[in-house]
Amino acid sequence: MPTSSHQPTYPAQVRITEVGLRDGLQSEAAFVPTATKVALLERLMDAGVRHFEATSFVSPRAVPQLRDAAELLATVRRRPGVQLSVLAPNRKGVERALAADADEAVVFLSASETHNRKNLNRSIADSLQDMREIAEIARGAPMRLHGAIACAFGCPFEGDVALDQVEAIARQFAELGFSGLTLGDTTGMATPPLVRATVQRLAARVPQLPVALHFHNTRGLGLANVMEGLALGVTRYESALAGTGGCPFAPGATGNVCTEDTVHLMEQLGVQTGIDLDALCEAGRELERVLGRTLPGQVMRAGPRLRRYAAEAQAAAVG
Amino acid sequence: MPTSSHQPTYPAQVRITEVGLRDGLQSEAAFVPTATKVALLERLMDAGVRHFEATSFVSPRAVPQLRDAAELLATVRRRPGVQLSVLAPNRKGVERALAADADEAVVFLSASETHNRKNLNRSIADSLQDMREIAEIARGAPMRLHGAIACAFGCPFEGDVALDQVEAIARQFAELGFSGLTLGDTTGMATPPLVRATVQRLAARVPQLPVALHFHNTRGLGLANVMEGLALGVTRYESALAGTGGCPFAPGATGNVCTEDTVHLMEQLGVQTGIDLDALCEAGRELERVLGRTLPGQVMRAGPRLRRYAAEAQAAAVG
Repeated sequence: MPTSSHQPTYPAQVRITEVGLRDGLQSEAAFVPTATKVALLERLMDAGVRHFEATSFVSPRAVPQLRDAAELLATVRRRPGVQLSVLAPNRKGVERALAADADEAVVFLSASETHNRKNLNRSIADSLQDMREIAEIARGAPMRLHGAIACAFGCPFEGDVALDQVEAIARQFAELGFSGLTLGDTTGMATPPLVRATVQRLAARVPQLPVALHFHNTRGLGLANVMEGLALGVTRYESALAGTGGCPFAPGATGNVCTEDTVHLMEQLGVQTGIDLDALCEAGRELERVLGRTLPGQVMRAGPRLRRYAAEAQAAAVG
Repeated sequence: MPTSSHQPTYPAQVRITEVGLRDGLQSEAAFVPTATKVALLERLMDAGVRHFEATSFVSPRAVPQLRDAAELLATVRRRPGVQLSVLAPNRKGVERALAADADEAVVFLSASETHNRKNLNRSIADSLQDMREIAEIARGAPMRLHGAIACAFGCPFEGDVALDQVEAIARQFAELGFSGLTLGDTTGMATPPLVRATVQRLAARVPQLPVALHFHNTRGLGLANVMEGLALGVTRYESALAGTGGCPFAPGATGNVCTEDTVHLMEQLGVQTGIDLDALCEAGRELERVLGRTLPGQVMRAGPRLRRYAAEAQAAAVG
């Protein structure tokens, strides 16, 4: 059998941003009390998580689950070294994020014209103009701005998106002085070759903007895409505790890439995350209790790979 | 951002062996009628699947679900180019497989002494002696013998297994003239670095024996491991329709790597499988109807990545 001798090298250390409290919870119909959200945040900080997309300053009518965004930020005890980002879909959201003393606001638009119109009710060109105004609002404030591109790897309405479009948006984020860029795989259309092409394009053309990868596991490729990102040298990832979050276009599909499963993979690849996997899994199980149902995360159920079982206790498996 | 410029190369074509009717069904309590199993086999052949581990000649007491092994093989209409393998846990199983005119018998032992004793009730040394007797039984018969190593990437009782042990077993399979070797990730302990180390060791030391990779998605790493196998040049994979099968040590964990999700990944990587993904997904949904519950497969639910949705029909997603 011919085998390739190329040994991929991975970054020594990565930054994982926990987005479960925003992307994971936003579609949950039953309101999770603010105190419960804060307790989850505290638990995750205790586990070593240092970066959060904690909530969204979106319209409470659009996303009732996150109507407590300001209260959440006012309640959670800030810790040195912990960064609380918030999603802000528009100028008003950025103003609310500023008022709430968020460390960072994540502003976004879509690489797909159709998706952007459905999601933000404006054209991409109008959204890019909004970004310029938002940059003015935040100028001089301690709050950083981070840009996100939704549907960066494909659109459920339009199909493939043009790399040129992704690059053009990234370029504007860079020109406005944004601190970083998230490539959002909103509906789980990323594949390893597409991750490679997109990351390499941005590294070549907009090298000043650090890239974070945000995958959904809609088609089971989440961790394969993360591994491709690592092989490319990407050091920032976004994931959700227990694999919460869904895709409105694929009922029953799993949601965001799961944080515990991502951390487990990183550990196995020798990549440092600073996060305690056992404590993280306990947080995942706590989220299952909070939401009252089984969530997609695998490692919190199976344990890390070297978990030992007593030989007497279980029936054996073949195959 | 530093990015690696190494472009992995993948095989042009791979062979996927569908193991759902054996590994997927074996733990199902409710007996699936033989006619239903045959209909699923037919549907999969129509979809282009050419290799099956179709059943097991195991004790009907141990695995009641597969008590119809002989009847299944007698009933299914053989097609040119389609290979029906059967699992055979011992000498008697191999004799029954011969009598049933199976194309290939898969015989196995575990790389872990504890697991082998629990699973086969004998030592690894005794199992290796059994292999020699089995090779005698099958000598001159048209039925091929294929070897499988259970717990090839770790044991839930012993932890890591020694590469030397895996190599020694593989070497004996090769010396006995077996047609190939499956590395079975029985309880989902494989990781990309372990896949690399094991495949490279066998390619260097037992190069005459083609290797097939059989992963379980217990810890979410199934497709990441498949991708690592592809980067290493491995051209044989085993997977189960709809991701059926479980792990008795990890209740609620998903089972085998899902065939549809694997084929979808292969398509995205430009690797030919000869399998029609749409027809395969339809077979996955049929299996969900047969078993009466949602199964882990993702692509059968979400559709392939370029499936288009009508912009009017759905609420949009952010992030």
